[in-house]
Amino acid sequence: MIGTESSASINKGSLPSANGNGTRSPTCSSDRVLNLEQGDPSVFQSYWSKMEDKCTMVISGSQLMSYISDFTTLCWFMEPEFQEAVRRLHRVVGNAVVDDRYIVVGTGSTQLYQAALYSLTSPGGPEPVSVVSAAPYYSAYPEETDYLRSRLYKWAGDAYEFDKNGTGPYIEVVNSPNNPDGTLREAVVKNRGDEGKLIHDLAYYWPQYTPIIRPADHDIMTFTFSKSTGHAGSRIGWAVVKDKEVARKMSKFIEMSTLGVSKDSQQRAAKIMGVICDDYKNFKSDELFFEHTRRVMADRWERLRQVVDRNQVFSLPKYPKQYCLFSGELIEPYPGFAWLEAKEEEEEIDSQKVLRGGIKVQGRTGSRFGVAQKYVRVSLLSNEEVFNQFLERLSTINSISNGH
Amino acid sequence: MIGTESSASINKGSLPSANGNGTRSPTCSSDRVLNLEQGDPSVFQSYWSKMEDKCTMVISGSQLMSYISDFTTLCWFMEPEFQEAVRRLHRVVGNAVVDDRYIVVGTGSTQLYQAALYSLTSPGGPEPVSVVSAAPYYSAYPEETDYLRSRLYKWAGDAYEFDKNGTGPYIEVVNSPNNPDGTLREAVVKNRGDEGKLIHDLAYYWPQYTPIIRPADHDIMTFTFSKSTGHAGSRIGWAVVKDKEVARKMSKFIEMSTLGVSKDSQQRAAKIMGVICDDYKNFKSDELFFEHTRRVMADRWERLRQVVDRNQVFSLPKYPKQYCLFSGELIEPYPGFAWLEAKEEEEEIDSQKVLRGGIKVQGRTGSRFGVAQKYVRVSLLSNEEVFNQFLERLSTINSISNGH
Repeated sequence: MIGTESSASINKGSLPSANGNGTRSPTCSSDRVLNLEQGDPSVFQSYWSKMEDKCTMVISGSQLMSYISDFTTLCWFMEPEFQEAVRRLHRVVGNAVVDDRYIVVGTGSTQLYQAALYSLTSPGGPEPVSVVSAAPYYSAYPEETDYLRSRLYKWAGDAYEFDKNGTGPYIEVVNSPNNPDGTLREAVVKNRGDEGKLIHDLAYYWPQYTPIIRPADHDIMTFTFSKSTGHAGSRIGWAVVKDKEVARKMSKFIEMSTLGVSKDSQQRAAKIMGVICDDYKNFKSDELFFEHTRRVMADRWERLRQVVDRNQVFSLPKYPKQYCLFSGELIEPYPGFAWLEAKEEEEEIDSQKVLRGGIKVQGRTGSRFGVAQKYVRVSLLSNEEVFNQFLERLSTINSISNGH
Repeated sequence: MIGTESSASINKGSLPSANGNGTRSPTCSSDRVLNLEQGDPSVFQSYWSKMEDKCTMVISGSQLMSYISDFTTLCWFMEPEFQEAVRRLHRVVGNAVVDDRYIVVGTGSTQLYQAALYSLTSPGGPEPVSVVSAAPYYSAYPEETDYLRSRLYKWAGDAYEFDKNGTGPYIEVVNSPNNPDGTLREAVVKNRGDEGKLIHDLAYYWPQYTPIIRPADHDIMTFTFSKSTGHAGSRIGWAVVKDKEVARKMSKFIEMSTLGVSKDSQQRAAKIMGVICDDYKNFKSDELFFEHTRRVMADRWERLRQVVDRNQVFSLPKYPKQYCLFSGELIEPYPGFAWLEAKEEEEEIDSQKVLRGGIKVQGRTGSRFGVAQKYVRVSLLSNEEVFNQFLERLSTINSISNGH
């Protein structure tokens, strides 16, 4: 469940306001709960507001009407312009190898994760294939794996546990940088020959969140428009895939699941990615996208660490500086979430409750990510007003008991 | 599989041409296979070309970025403007009861069908629930039901068979007007109390295809933008649902499957539905949408019946005239597919092969719909050029053997 907080107001009639000044955003009066449970990427909206003209998408009533984009390709519902934009963006950023790779478009990376599971399994096995990811793992994996009670695959929890005690065929999902804790990761289950397959969920492997340490080059890599540029409402993701049959099965899954992917959104994504790439090519923008957004994230992390250090209730992960191929500098990661750990010793402390009860901030408990509830994840991707309010409230917490 | 015919050309750079004059449409040279296997609704494109200005959708770079539309409603990812447009359109057409009903948006009716199955089943039953539909049934139901090998539900074939011999809990899908054969339908499994649930797939219950005999009022009714207005590329569908918990479970399914539905496409659908409704309110358009499209479909059926009657190789279903509440007239159905039955007696005749071998027309065999292969389904929703070419080729078939 993404959440049920009553924290969004509705703008009727015309399209929602573009300026991030409150419509459809969480309100900030002090008696209102700040919903920071989801990673809604509102932080990037102000950048796009300044780009209005260049990024405006115009679709006439008779365009994009067909189911089909190109029947000569295996992902026949993918707009050619979208595929070109994806390849170009990866080449500009250098975060993934795309030459001689297949691209598959999906309705967000949520759908692509399920398409990948489908592509790596087949009917007729004696047991469903075990799906694992190292804890703390993305909280949606268990549910997305198990909700249809498939005989093809089943959620099997923490990959470290599976490495020690698990047997049989498995799929390990490697989420890097990892949601919730922001670490750069590699597979943890030791190679068992043909028994293991990998899915790399690289939703956050973009320069605003992390140093780009190498062009990623794995069998199946998934990315999403939601986290790369902040356009979550378009529900666009893509996979970069080495093997043709895997790409074909993923496309087939998306065909059976939703008979393709919104062309309106594919074209919009292509346009916005194109603007980013053009700006890098021409150095024409006042501030380039990844430089701007990285600066915003760096600023948030600096202010967050000051508050957390001062009040001594929680701690945050420390991340090593690494050389970023994209920026040519040694830089720190600035993850999209704060992964807060209560400093008191007892594992039983419920940090989500501490935040909710003490300062009316809704985070997501560590137990949803397969670890102790002394951890809580809080989104850092809200708009500026909400982020400021979060820091203000966080600075008023002086002890865990204060939070109870 | 929607098909693999190489029948679409690609338009690079700008958005695809809006005029239906060939780009991305099947080409018509006489040695080229005409792909009429899918129901790609190109027939409506020329209408929307004339409406360009009124229907043009403009989305700036910073709009529609959030995952969330309205957290106060159970379908939190549904744009309020979309919901209002859906309710308004049904009120204008009179084809479904929407007062005191929940609306759930989906990525096409394909996703809503699966959401409905999920909402009507629950884990822990001894056996998967049987899913049935009266043959000839929509060819995608078996695959969409079984591809994940769910323990919640399984495809169990023809509803008539199940009515005679089936036992245990079941879900019957009632597709009305039915794809492939165009008949108006009711449930066929006799009521067994709590054991049976119904899904009504009303994709074609619109005035261009059928008389509107009453405002439909069933537990779960699904509709799609693809068939109502012809905008298949947007992947937008919706369900009208009586029970709150069912609507909640369907929304939950869509959350787990794709974390919502493209807002770009929801807004575009709202705009286009709004134009249709405004035109009916103001009588301002030269020709109103359903009147225009019904006239086109009537013309196609008249010409089709002439050719089929003349060459005596196939027969078509006869449909009774019924009183249409929308037009206030006694009218015939004009389905989106021709359901052709070979006139020769043997059940073994492969009509798909006859069309493909004899006149290079790709239809879909009856066996995909759970009946004999003497039946073949051919789309009547292509653009005018392709439809004319189809009739021209069909008129050259003089006997089944000619087709071999």
